[in-house]
Amino acid sequence: MNEQLAQSVRQLIDATIRTEVDDTTLTTVQSKIDWATEQLSASLMPGSFGVRQMSDGRSRALGNVVIGDRNPVAPPLRIHDDADGLVWTDFVLGAAYEGPPGHVHGGVCAMILDHVLGATAHLPDKPAYTGTLTLRYLRGTPLGQPLRAEAHVDRIDGTKTFAVGHIADAEGVTVQAEGVFIHPREAQP
Amino acid sequence: MNEQLAQSVRQLIDATIRTEVDDTTLTTVQSKIDWATEQLSASLMPGSFGVRQMSDGRSRALGNVVIGDRNPVAPPLRIHDDADGLVWTDFVLGAAYEGPPGHVHGGVCAMILDHVLGATAHLPDKPAYTGTLTLRYLRGTPLGQPLRAEAHVDRIDGTKTFAVGHIADAEGVTVQAEGVFIHPREAQP
Repeated sequence: MNEQLAQSVRQLIDATIRTEVDDTTLTTVQSKIDWATEQLSASLMPGSFGVRQMSDGRSRALGNVVIGDRNPVAPPLRIHDDADGLVWTDFVLGAAYEGPPGHVHGGVCAMILDHVLGATAHLPDKPAYTGTLTLRYLRGTPLGQPLRAEAHVDRIDGTKTFAVGHIADAEGVTVQAEGVFIHPREAQP
Repeated sequence: MNEQLAQSVRQLIDATIRTEVDDTTLTTVQSKIDWATEQLSASLMPGSFGVRQMSDGRSRALGNVVIGDRNPVAPPLRIHDDADGLVWTDFVLGAAYEGPPGHVHGGVCAMILDHVLGATAHLPDKPAYTGTLTLRYLRGTPLGQPLRAEAHVDRIDGTKTFAVGHIADAEGVTVQAEGVFIHPREAQP
């Protein structure tokens, strides 16, 4: 249910940016939104969602800003992890992710590549943290068109995983990335 | 009015992630959200907001994912540009920007640093585009605590601006960044 609500809020976000209705309608809508927030706030967890064990025994980060099904800010990306080690995700980004007019913000590309490259190093219940990340922007990444982000491990050296990847549209690569991801020897953020 | 609505939607996003109310309430709230989206969608601009000339003659990117006042996904950051060339912004990020439990997603730090470093190179109506961006993560960046991102120009070489900066919390720097930002010779995304 929370996931379905988050999906409805994603559509609301898009409409909030793009609407051209009059102020009277905006006022009416805003009061309904405030009412909805009040209803949901009758019982709130402290802090953020974090990572939780679900009923199937698997840990899930439902509040994550990139992949969290409960987080309306997340597209959310579905990360696939092929047997040959390729990590990839297909997605389309709308008006909420805009930087240059009609294009995805370069920082959003960085955010997605951080997550997808990092996913090459993740192990069950043993996440990897970003050490360094380098991005090379070749050209603008379009809003509203099919995009793919992918990454693979270049090499592993002790606790460090060196990953490379990119974002591409139908015409080819728009942003390249390389990063070093670290498995801490003991738990730390 | 649109900016006030966006602020209400930001509060709704936080409550959507953190709510623990029962399914009956979630269903009722979701139907109200869908109604609100329908009202706003009675008149929608095509595509995204882009950059528009306001009544005061200044151009504004109200739909921008980092600074856009109309975009509920944007915190939104207020970017200050000091006379000595320092660009900075103070902010607090909530549950919607989570990566590691209780911490800002490394990709969100990258997004903010891309924007703040890029702002050192922006000229009125002549934005700069990211060429390369390198991030070094020193430790986790906390959710719910005061943060500052700042940047300055290291050097300029033709159309290229070399900028450096960081994000810090009360204990010091959490992420360092350096980037090259480019003024295209002719208009391009």
